[in-house]
Amino acid sequence: MTALPGLSDETAGLLLGGAPVRIAAVGVPEFAEVPRTAGAEVTALDWRPPAAGEPEAAWRLAELTGHPAVEAANREAVARLLAVRPVWTRVLPAREAIAALGDRSRRLLLHAGPPLAWSAMCGPMRAGVIGAALLEGWADSPEAAERLADSGVLEFEPCHHHEAVGPMGGIISPSMPLIEVEDPATGRRAYSNLNEGAGRCLRYGALGADVMERLRWMGTVLAPALSAALGARGEGVDLRAVTAQALQMGDECHSRNTAASTLLLRELAADLCETAHAREVLRFLSDNHYWFLNFSMAAAKLATSAAHGVPHSTLVTAFARNGVEVGIRVGGLGDAWFTAPATQVRGLYFAGYGPEDANPDIGDSAITETYGLGGFSLAAAPAITGFVGGTVEEALRTSRDMARISLARHEAYRLPALGGVGAPVGIDVRAVLDTGIVPVVTTGISHREPGIGQIGAGLTHAPLECFRKALDAMAVPASEIASGTGSP
Amino acid sequence: MTALPGLSDETAGLLLGGAPVRIAAVGVPEFAEVPRTAGAEVTALDWRPPAAGEPEAAWRLAELTGHPAVEAANREAVARLLAVRPVWTRVLPAREAIAALGDRSRRLLLHAGPPLAWSAMCGPMRAGVIGAALLEGWADSPEAAERLADSGVLEFEPCHHHEAVGPMGGIISPSMPLIEVEDPATGRRAYSNLNEGAGRCLRYGALGADVMERLRWMGTVLAPALSAALGARGEGVDLRAVTAQALQMGDECHSRNTAASTLLLRELAADLCETAHAREVLRFLSDNHYWFLNFSMAAAKLATSAAHGVPHSTLVTAFARNGVEVGIRVGGLGDAWFTAPATQVRGLYFAGYGPEDANPDIGDSAITETYGLGGFSLAAAPAITGFVGGTVEEALRTSRDMARISLARHEAYRLPALGGVGAPVGIDVRAVLDTGIVPVVTTGISHREPGIGQIGAGLTHAPLECFRKALDAMAVPASEIASGTGSP
Repeated sequence: MTALPGLSDETAGLLLGGAPVRIAAVGVPEFAEVPRTAGAEVTALDWRPPAAGEPEAAWRLAELTGHPAVEAANREAVARLLAVRPVWTRVLPAREAIAALGDRSRRLLLHAGPPLAWSAMCGPMRAGVIGAALLEGWADSPEAAERLADSGVLEFEPCHHHEAVGPMGGIISPSMPLIEVEDPATGRRAYSNLNEGAGRCLRYGALGADVMERLRWMGTVLAPALSAALGARGEGVDLRAVTAQALQMGDECHSRNTAASTLLLRELAADLCETAHAREVLRFLSDNHYWFLNFSMAAAKLATSAAHGVPHSTLVTAFARNGVEVGIRVGGLGDAWFTAPATQVRGLYFAGYGPEDANPDIGDSAITETYGLGGFSLAAAPAITGFVGGTVEEALRTSRDMARISLARHEAYRLPALGGVGAPVGIDVRAVLDTGIVPVVTTGISHREPGIGQIGAGLTHAPLECFRKALDAMAVPASEIASGTGSP
Repeated sequence: MTALPGLSDETAGLLLGGAPVRIAAVGVPEFAEVPRTAGAEVTALDWRPPAAGEPEAAWRLAELTGHPAVEAANREAVARLLAVRPVWTRVLPAREAIAALGDRSRRLLLHAGPPLAWSAMCGPMRAGVIGAALLEGWADSPEAAERLADSGVLEFEPCHHHEAVGPMGGIISPSMPLIEVEDPATGRRAYSNLNEGAGRCLRYGALGADVMERLRWMGTVLAPALSAALGARGEGVDLRAVTAQALQMGDECHSRNTAASTLLLRELAADLCETAHAREVLRFLSDNHYWFLNFSMAAAKLATSAAHGVPHSTLVTAFARNGVEVGIRVGGLGDAWFTAPATQVRGLYFAGYGPEDANPDIGDSAITETYGLGGFSLAAAPAITGFVGGTVEEALRTSRDMARISLARHEAYRLPALGGVGAPVGIDVRAVLDTGIVPVVTTGISHREPGIGQIGAGLTHAPLECFRKALDAMAVPASEIASGTGSP
């Protein structure tokens, strides 16, 4: 009997000489290979040590897991998130929607992701800043815009700090039109900019006369037409209903918005047709399969903001990338961002481009994942695999995996390919650290140089490090609170 | 040792005393039960004897199976079917589209399914005749319309005999607007009427002032607006592209047309918005989730008609129900219909109705199944299970089963949940009889009494008897043709 490398003689003997052996393998994949080669039936368990294998963190995680105060806080947070009914109510200039942008003594721009200085910004975000400075008339050339930014006159704050979200670079300047989404029960509001469509777009870092012309048209023609149509309609558009339908129609409402965009056009077409420039507006909307993305993001921001601020909650209420860093915010941890370096996106590239051209993960659009959409609802969008890569089986498995790190299922957002089960919603920091499963994100890919734009789309994830840092900031609630006998 | 009922002592001994036994069971399910009860591992094979177990028919089926002349004929027929690019080109009154309806000396109505006399018609089709007689001004009351029909003055012919198709009752009268679908490469054309939407509709057998008012509005407002929009567009609408997209968006384009209807509205919205009555037309289209059904049917009729008439082809080129009988036509068998009694639909009912209220299967809409849509593409539409019943797993299995009785896969119509494989298309009479698998149909359910309308939706199938009769009519091609040495 020949000994097998890496196995004791006793084990090897069992494998080669005895009855059929069944092995459950835990840990590095190589452990499973030798007995499998020897003919044993090996089941590799997808298990990782909790809290990235760090003992002190694992102890804190254990204390927080099942802790009554944390459980109660998360129930409350999830209830608030699910209770939000996002209704698109208005289109208005950013300076009217966001107070800080209305201050004409400042030259403030909002950007995607956690806070970032001009000097640290990546290529596509720098391009967004340049385009916005040109749009506002603060500079008359890209070079002048860069000098202005270098001079320190421009100020930068995250969209998220103003109840707003922007895809990719996410640059919002005072004159850009925003969509306003409101929860009728609470009056709470959130904002996003209008989607430019496909092709050369500022959000992806493209620059040029065509890009600027479209941005100006959006302010002078598109936004007034949408406002007029909403006025003629006489009521807002229930984005929860649109999202719920779109999930039945192959969208995951982050990187595939074909159905939702078309449904939104259908909702508005009759009221749009009597506005000025109706034909060109309807043509623009007909051609823009990403149109709904910014609505999806504003709705997600509205719902997750409502869930923010519950003490001891471990719910992730924001997840955003500025192209350099990824950051999360947690419901019970105030305004802090827990950051890690931005990840690379694994995806499919347009002809002529490859991973070496790609900017790391960027944009506020991952707010959709915190709302149960995007990667969490990947099972709803089998056709997206042709755009971001992967297989239908992987899409189904991703939604199942995301359920393991989610606190609830959304009763209105159902996944037809999984028998109509609700979308997993509400990322729990504890569950991410306990399982080692990180949130999956569907996203577009920008060229890393300013001025070029989108070069592909794909899948990425939130770095575990963000969650690890959030855990460090969590206090274990005192036991009298835990047992419910003390005062809050 | 106790003997087991229905098993020889030897078999029982094997099961109870010996090594584990694995059994493959063929035939009636009860065969598998006794050994399974005794602990054997039983795999029940889904096998039925070919040609419904009739020896003479089975011999003919064997001769036709793999016959070179039949194979060549079917390749030609399928190639013709797949080559058709259905383009919606016009909206025009039926009397202009169909010569026989333009003959003002006749009072001709077209109806769904194989030929049927007035005296034999079911309730919902009688209601359709009454509504059409009122619409044409041939009668001024339902009673007068019935007397007119009883008098023998009205004539009835199948839609299918005039390259047309109509859902449910399928009544087409001279003044009704039709959609024209054309194959640009051949100039071949097919027709269907305009879809009335949900609720109380003539096609389902509803009658009343509301039903008549909508039909008149469709002729005087809707049809001219659609014509004007098509004119402004300057080109037709490629229905193959719409269908292909809709299959990625949860439609099977027979009983679920939500995506396709919305996509078609999107295609037309910009050109519609400058026509008269644009707002009410867009409102009507926005509310009508069945709008695309009649386009899907006309496209299917166009493609299957192109495949008809190839000698020796066993391809099913029509499949239609008149509410009393179901009939199929076969590519190599001329204009004959092979009929069987209409089946009951297994489905979900609106509140207050049940199977006892249901009319048997009715309508030309099963033409979509002969084109790879409907039941054949059920895997594309997991959400439809909430409307017609069944589970997602059954939907996937149905598309797989339909592939076993289909000659090809449609390269443009892909099923995302099955990894993007093409929709099974081209029902082969031989394959149906060989496997015993019958085509599955998704369909609406009419109340059996005239005047009421839709009461549910569900699944049914084409009766095996239709295929059995078609086989009887098939001649086995002579061997010199079969070997390719003779002249055709």
